Amino acid sequence: MQTFEHLSAPPRMLMGPGPISAYPRVLRALSNQLIGQYDPAMTNYMNQTMELYRQVFKTKNDATVLVDGTSRAGIEAVLVSLIEPGDTVLVPIFGRFGHLLSEIAQRAGAQVISFEVEWGTVVSDSAVEQAIIKHKPKLLALVQGDTSTTMLQPLQGIGEICKKHGVLFYSDATASIVGNPFETDLWQLDAVSVGLQKCLGGPSGSAPITLSPNAVELIRKRKHVEAGIRTQSHQSGSASRISSNYFDLGMILDYWGEERLNHHTEATSMLYAARECAQLNLEEGLDEVIKRHQLAGGAMAAGLRAMGLNLFGDQAHKMNNVVGVVIPSEVNGDAIRMAMLNQFNIEIGTSFGPLHGKIWRIGTMGYNARLDTVLLTLVALEALLVQAGAVVHKGAAYQVASAFYLEGS
Amino acid sequence: MQTFEHLSAPPRMLMGPGPISAYPRVLRALSNQLIGQYDPAMTNYMNQTMELYRQVFKTKNDATVLVDGTSRAGIEAVLVSLIEPGDTVLVPIFGRFGHLLSEIAQRAGAQVISFEVEWGTVVSDSAVEQAIIKHKPKLLALVQGDTSTTMLQPLQGIGEICKKHGVLFYSDATASIVGNPFETDLWQLDAVSVGLQKCLGGPSGSAPITLSPNAVELIRKRKHVEAGIRTQSHQSGSASRISSNYFDLGMILDYWGEERLNHHTEATSMLYAARECAQLNLEEGLDEVIKRHQLAGGAMAAGLRAMGLNLFGDQAHKMNNVVGVVIPSEVNGDAIRMAMLNQFNIEIGTSFGPLHGKIWRIGTMGYNARLDTVLLTLVALEALLVQAGAVVHKGAAYQVASAFYLEGS
Repeated sequence: MQTFEHLSAPPRMLMGPGPISAYPRVLRALSNQLIGQYDPAMTNYMNQTMELYRQVFKTKNDATVLVDGTSRAGIEAVLVSLIEPGDTVLVPIFGRFGHLLSEIAQRAGAQVISFEVEWGTVVSDSAVEQAIIKHKPKLLALVQGDTSTTMLQPLQGIGEICKKHGVLFYSDATASIVGNPFETDLWQLDAVSVGLQKCLGGPSGSAPITLSPNAVELIRKRKHVEAGIRTQSHQSGSASRISSNYFDLGMILDYWGEERLNHHTEATSMLYAARECAQLNLEEGLDEVIKRHQLAGGAMAAGLRAMGLNLFGDQAHKMNNVVGVVIPSEVNGDAIRMAMLNQFNIEIGTSFGPLHGKIWRIGTMGYNARLDTVLLTLVALEALLVQAGAVVHKGAAYQVASAFYLEGS
Repeated sequence: MQTFEHLSAPPRMLMGPGPISAYPRVLRALSNQLIGQYDPAMTNYMNQTMELYRQVFKTKNDATVLVDGTSRAGIEAVLVSLIEPGDTVLVPIFGRFGHLLSEIAQRAGAQVISFEVEWGTVVSDSAVEQAIIKHKPKLLALVQGDTSTTMLQPLQGIGEICKKHGVLFYSDATASIVGNPFETDLWQLDAVSVGLQKCLGGPSGSAPITLSPNAVELIRKRKHVEAGIRTQSHQSGSASRISSNYFDLGMILDYWGEERLNHHTEATSMLYAARECAQLNLEEGLDEVIKRHQLAGGAMAAGLRAMGLNLFGDQAHKMNNVVGVVIPSEVNGDAIRMAMLNQFNIEIGTSFGPLHGKIWRIGTMGYNARLDTVLLTLVALEALLVQAGAVVHKGAAYQVASAFYLEGS
């Protein structure tokens, strides 16, 4: 028998593209003792969580629940529940997560039409509309914030285009929610998925989603109840059964709904975390939270520029909560990142795919969307860059970032 | 904006079929601050978790990882990764979870052959072998412990039968692991899945699994790497792509393996919990933990019998950690359950399907596999039964259960 040292997570300050350091209140929520899945206290917490996420998503959708898994579990649950094999799905791609939506839709049996814009830019409304007219998809799947490029896709005009052409509109807003504006009902979205591990300020492992009445109706046609708990009052729907049991949103809605029909055993600790994330963000106020992300992210970007570094991508469409920084050619990007971690306990991010080795990604999210975290990150990075021989404007980042933050506050 | 009261879980003693009250150490582990997914501290915890679960599963399988979801996520990951559409899968059923395996296998495209034995009994080796000979399945999927009936399926003879006939052997041991003997390698299993929320003593939401080299080889033939992170060195396998991205065990193994190829963002808090569950059970010693479950479960059963109640099912094949009790005809089962919860903060379980309204299920699992919890449950239940006018032997349960436990200790 071999066991290990007591768990004792090192005191990192997570300033990468996510996961981020959780709000202490969320960690305390996680340490609450468990309760039974049909305990009135539990079903009350479930109902409260639905109501809290309706406010986070800005929706009246009754069907607002958690999927028990990481954010990509939420994506897969939405796609596998909405897509019937052979359906055409349009996926505009502006970074890694567009590829992910495309891949999951393909695995769900969709005929995926995708087009990709250069990483560091976003997709235009007109390009989406042209593709819709040409391919007549059933569903448009479009990421709002793609951390791989730091870009924030404008969604406000796209819902109307979808409605005009009778297309369902789905967005994953994991990277962007509460760090940037998001309007489920106003933007006419039919499905939205997120995760806790970015601006919401919790751990990965729970995926809040919301579904419009249209989306629910479609899913209800694929209704199925397990043989082990099925009774005579349960009728199956007329459309094809969803290929996943775990991600069958009809069953998940029945579990969260009045019938409380058994499905999985709700991940209670993660539900506590999800509830607390929503609660603390709503208590601060969504507008205030977004403002704080604007300030922290803006101060970080201003500080990096003041240091003499170049930022990646179209800055007019950058998410508030993460910035891409071009790694100076004089330095080894991974060595600097490791030194940030080992000497300062500060984590900044590397990159994927075409950007690998070329940019760092620095986040200012949730609990860490603060002035002190921004300033510490900047002065630590500057110290390492100076030591590594990079040409930087010494001392400027601290002053510019502070001034930016304080002027905006 | 509407927010709710501070999270404050009521002090329940969970004595149902699961979820159960978590070990306090696990709750403390959950409240550790997050770290990045590629932080050396994190990958070290991931490697330790693999090693700890190899010991829990009693296996040398390298491929021993967590699936980020509840226990049925682990089941679905195994089945969807091993089953190619059209494969024949044999699923003997002795309770609700057999139906679940059958259903998930069907959704994965399998030709499912199932046969069901009466609830309260288990499946014989010879029935399994006959079905294997007749149907020549690729995979046998068989639950070890089915909480719906409280039965423990003997597995020790079945691995050999599977090997003889070239059949892959998979078991879900969520309900039984560490409360009852389990031997992955000795019993020649190719795949095993569990959850934390039973005898392991943690929250639902993480599903440890282990895969034999044979199972891994089969999965590797279905290898796929996402477009967003694929490089020239990544070749796709020759067999059909797995229909789920989230449950693609090849990708999950690449994430847990040396390449650390990005997939989901590991659910860090749940990993902390999973690690702590394994660690504390191994520190106590698996034999001692099983013994404690035998004692607590035995004392509970003896106490219930001493009260004059009838137990459900074949007691020779009952799991140590849960017992079915026939609800006396004089009382309303749900009213008693509610009174247990509301007056004593003790949760006992109801039942599904054919047993609904007929039996209670009372668990003694993990942290709550103790003498005090058994005695409190018995005296509280007795008080309510007496008040409700049931004919019980007053005062006997406490004495018999105490004596049983102390004699065995």
